[in-house]
Amino acid sequence: MNFCSHCGAVVQLVHLPNDALPRYVCATCAAIHYQNPKMVTGCVVYRQNRVLLCKRAIEPCFGMWNLPAGYLENGETAEKGAMREVWEEAHAEVSIQGLHCIYSIPRINQVYLIFLASLNNLQFSPTSESSEVALFSETEINWNEIAFTSSVFALKHFFSDLREGTARVHIGSFTG
Amino acid sequence: MNFCSHCGAVVQLVHLPNDALPRYVCATCAAIHYQNPKMVTGCVVYRQNRVLLCKRAIEPCFGMWNLPAGYLENGETAEKGAMREVWEEAHAEVSIQGLHCIYSIPRINQVYLIFLASLNNLQFSPTSESSEVALFSETEINWNEIAFTSSVFALKHFFSDLREGTARVHIGSFTG
Repeated sequence: MNFCSHCGAVVQLVHLPNDALPRYVCATCAAIHYQNPKMVTGCVVYRQNRVLLCKRAIEPCFGMWNLPAGYLENGETAEKGAMREVWEEAHAEVSIQGLHCIYSIPRINQVYLIFLASLNNLQFSPTSESSEVALFSETEINWNEIAFTSSVFALKHFFSDLREGTARVHIGSFTG
Repeated sequence: MNFCSHCGAVVQLVHLPNDALPRYVCATCAAIHYQNPKMVTGCVVYRQNRVLLCKRAIEPCFGMWNLPAGYLENGETAEKGAMREVWEEAHAEVSIQGLHCIYSIPRINQVYLIFLASLNNLQFSPTSESSEVALFSETEINWNEIAFTSSVFALKHFFSDLREGTARVHIGSFTG
């Protein structure tokens, strides 16, 4: 950040009184430009013992497989954003069953909110964001082809919950 | 948003191809300035059947009572942010026991992530943000003095879970 998005003047990084972090402050109009983490919302979409994965047709990790997930937009609830991402990436309609995990990546200022969602029917298809969409059981997944630690975290816990017959919310982070 | 925070030129609200929402785009350097919801992290801090509330010494809702909570900062995990807020607002040290609720307020682009946390000891005190800090049982709470619908949602569910001997993650939203 170099310029004030409100008035266009130059901003400075300032340590304000009683504030933990330095902030970009406009020397002309005094606007404080806070910067905060973003939420990524998505779903572990399941049908019996299989989960729906999408082969990425976009960067990053083009060609790898992923849960349908993406940035929450202004004006959305977390669960609506998660369902929208499933539609955009897999053209699938789902019903949210509960929260599955929250997973923070502080180095890149992201928090994932991943819901458990059941497929409403067996209709899903490739989209502009996914070259393939398919259901996988645990043994059918090639773990080397899964994009992002957040997906591995969510999927591993889904299948261990399935084996144990439990469902709880998992809290994790990647601090590497 | 009027100006590009990268180069200082005027931005325009543009509907980009394959994008659901209009974005602020710089006509000079082509930077796209995405705007996304913010996370508020905090805790229902409990000791037996009582919860820790803070009387707000800051606006908004100056003088009303609230859970310790505030905006997640860059570089934090969700749970670290929640513990930092408890320290900043109540000078209390806590142990996170799990997630309690997520609560979206799409009209103002906020998602609350509220954790369950036990008090490590009975040391807590007023801070620059809280004029009083105290433990309350359900019947000791004056519900008309609780700031924010997110706090009411989290507290009502905490006490009903307590009565029922259960603990699960609650998903809610305020869409008024």
